[in-house]
Amino acid sequence: MTENNYPSSPISNFSRRELRDLVRSQLQALLEQQNLAGAKALLVPVQPADVADAIEGLPETIQVIAFRLLPKNEAIEVYEYLDSTVQKSLCEKFKRQEVLDIVDKMSPDDRARLFDELPAKIVRRLRAELSPQEREATSLLLGYESETAGRIMTPEYISLKEYFTVSQSLGEIRRKANVTETVYSLYVTDSQRHLTGIVSLRDLVVAEPEETVGEIMGRDLVFVHTETDREEVARVIQRYDFLALPVVDREQRLVGIITVDDVLDILEQETTEDIYALGGVQSDGDNYFQVGLFTAARRRVVWLFVLLLTNTVTGSIISAQEDILQKVVALAAFIPLLTGTGGNVGAQSSTVVIRGMNTDEIWKMGPIQVIVREGLAGALLGSILGILATIWAYLFIVPGNFPVSITVGVSLLAIAILASVAGSSLPFLFRSFGLDPALMSAPFITTAVDVLGVLIYFNLARAILQI
Amino acid sequence: MTENNYPSSPISNFSRRELRDLVRSQLQALLEQQNLAGAKALLVPVQPADVADAIEGLPETIQVIAFRLLPKNEAIEVYEYLDSTVQKSLCEKFKRQEVLDIVDKMSPDDRARLFDELPAKIVRRLRAELSPQEREATSLLLGYESETAGRIMTPEYISLKEYFTVSQSLGEIRRKANVTETVYSLYVTDSQRHLTGIVSLRDLVVAEPEETVGEIMGRDLVFVHTETDREEVARVIQRYDFLALPVVDREQRLVGIITVDDVLDILEQETTEDIYALGGVQSDGDNYFQVGLFTAARRRVVWLFVLLLTNTVTGSIISAQEDILQKVVALAAFIPLLTGTGGNVGAQSSTVVIRGMNTDEIWKMGPIQVIVREGLAGALLGSILGILATIWAYLFIVPGNFPVSITVGVSLLAIAILASVAGSSLPFLFRSFGLDPALMSAPFITTAVDVLGVLIYFNLARAILQI
Repeated sequence: MTENNYPSSPISNFSRRELRDLVRSQLQALLEQQNLAGAKALLVPVQPADVADAIEGLPETIQVIAFRLLPKNEAIEVYEYLDSTVQKSLCEKFKRQEVLDIVDKMSPDDRARLFDELPAKIVRRLRAELSPQEREATSLLLGYESETAGRIMTPEYISLKEYFTVSQSLGEIRRKANVTETVYSLYVTDSQRHLTGIVSLRDLVVAEPEETVGEIMGRDLVFVHTETDREEVARVIQRYDFLALPVVDREQRLVGIITVDDVLDILEQETTEDIYALGGVQSDGDNYFQVGLFTAARRRVVWLFVLLLTNTVTGSIISAQEDILQKVVALAAFIPLLTGTGGNVGAQSSTVVIRGMNTDEIWKMGPIQVIVREGLAGALLGSILGILATIWAYLFIVPGNFPVSITVGVSLLAIAILASVAGSSLPFLFRSFGLDPALMSAPFITTAVDVLGVLIYFNLARAILQI
Repeated sequence: MTENNYPSSPISNFSRRELRDLVRSQLQALLEQQNLAGAKALLVPVQPADVADAIEGLPETIQVIAFRLLPKNEAIEVYEYLDSTVQKSLCEKFKRQEVLDIVDKMSPDDRARLFDELPAKIVRRLRAELSPQEREATSLLLGYESETAGRIMTPEYISLKEYFTVSQSLGEIRRKANVTETVYSLYVTDSQRHLTGIVSLRDLVVAEPEETVGEIMGRDLVFVHTETDREEVARVIQRYDFLALPVVDREQRLVGIITVDDVLDILEQETTEDIYALGGVQSDGDNYFQVGLFTAARRRVVWLFVLLLTNTVTGSIISAQEDILQKVVALAAFIPLLTGTGGNVGAQSSTVVIRGMNTDEIWKMGPIQVIVREGLAGALLGSILGILATIWAYLFIVPGNFPVSITVGVSLLAIAILASVAGSSLPFLFRSFGLDPALMSAPFITTAVDVLGVLIYFNLARAILQI
């Protein structure tokens, strides 16, 4: 990285973000000066993903001008990288023929995703004008439910026959290289299109020209069905280190493939959904930073309502204890400590359990073992925290008041055990009912821990303080 | 999936987990009956990742017997898939020559990971006995800091020269296919090993045999440096849909590559770390479900200590308000509602901001814009919740007591705004200091919101109730 490091010399990712910002601002400046030739030259050496990024950063009015500067082949690739909101707004500004040119050449899986976003009327019109084989490919994908393997696969793969020789196969690959998603994983089918083997381009390149595909292909097939959930697809590719995974229909006929780059995007979206669910935010698959204020608030209000309800119950329990609170006001000072710790211990347990379910690592222990271990961990943590809290309370908060201090300590122990057991067992329960543990666990754990925790606290207080 | 669906016919992932369990239990039964030939036959058609899984599930005493059943080539692949704890325990039980045979043939990146786990004494002995070029490859990797590109890269790649013809290049690939990590991305270097171009096997297969590499290679290089963080590496591969990414040293010389399958594992680990951090659990890169009870508890106790401290402060504030609580005991009933809602609104804001930083999506808005929008969302949510809480309090918890009800409602609004602003701004603050927002945000947000929230509540109560 010496002199003149952009755009002709290699770009390190250390400064990739700064360089992207530079491309974006230069592009905007050139377009505003109407220097179209300069803008065009600027974009030539830039990676399609970065061009898409630069276009997304432009004011809406000049996005379409920038897009039109791109050579046709690159335009389609850049379009596939654009956010769906930008894809949609460009689509509305394009001339009819421009739209068709792009949409007809997109990969079927990317096109299916675009069609999901566009208004039904536009989709109908576009589909009618696609070339017959592209229309068929897209209809095939759109027939499957969203988030399934069928919906995210591409029908553009290369299939070989067992009796092909290696050199015949390489010829076939050469012919189809420009219309297929990958040339590295090749699928062997019989006359009824049943998947019978898998061969990699690596195997073909290493093999002798006259060997047949049947001799070198792998027969230990791993595949998914069209209705397999996309998260499961991602897990399979990750587990076996595949570059692509074949998708078959109910009769085991090969209908498409899913490539590892799609899996990276799926994993990112699924992770965002999981993290949002754990943080109490709903997700709809779109970008939180591109939705309006009201949508953002709506995504969060449901969870807050649930908590409001929970806290109303907790509040009623506390206000029903007015007699004891009146006599020992100091008890009120510990309520946030108890509900807060309970909530956090429960969140810790449910976090490790839910994440363990998503990565399949939890199955190295059985559910009972996990719950018992969490319960023991809760008892251990509760003992430590309970002793500390007793000492702190006795020294600083209610100086010299041992009965109140020990009530707090013992309650903390009980709440920690309760919270660990609830936090580790509820996710298993929801999962066995077919519900998403990440979404369901937090409200129920909070409710159980808060309500039971406060009840334990006051009943212990009555017993110890003899009120 | 008709008759006899295992192990000779294709396996659907629908029943993959059940089938894995079957392999595991059959393997154990066969080994206990000392039927080694049967066990060997059972494992032949199984994918290496699944064999590793089956071995991990066996009792420690027979793991080594099962492992010895594998043909040599497959043994190494299976070994690379094993958990590091199992790798380590096998290593201790192997005979010296067995260990050497396996370790010498592992990929340098997998070997470096194993050496990280083994005791220093064993590593020293093993390194001394590796073949010279394997020793050099491993030393190279071990010289870089953990979690950097240098540490996770493999030095086993294929490099070409610009003046090579396509057919020369294909010959080179054929020769090196068995010792290289990937044959699909090929790297072009000059006489000083500087990276000058990238060419894919796809390009080579499609090109004419007499074309030169220089004519068909791509010159828009994307690469990382040896010291680039592995999370950044994963982002780059994901962004550009690469199958492999070149790693260069400070002089821009090619020293290794990182492949997409490693990136999938990195993303999974990083996601687990982020999710654990948000849930208040420390992670050390190992599997929570394989560590002991005390380690599991230790991972959680730090965060609970921080909360205990926070809650001690909150508790002191509440107990300092004894006079007002004595007069209006009902005020105590709303403390969990206020701290709970504050905590949750704050967690929602910090969740979306931290996740947005990790996926780079947040940079579509500036920090100020994000914080302002979160503040507005907090005001909106706080208004809705405040009105509801006022009504609920008035009707059910403190029937007919309007001053207390409105105090609760207004406090809730103030706390929601405070929590959203703290939740969205603190992650930016920590990031600008180079600290991990996922780790640092929760304690500080909770503290700020709890302490300030309780202060706001009691001061409002004094003002409104005129005490």
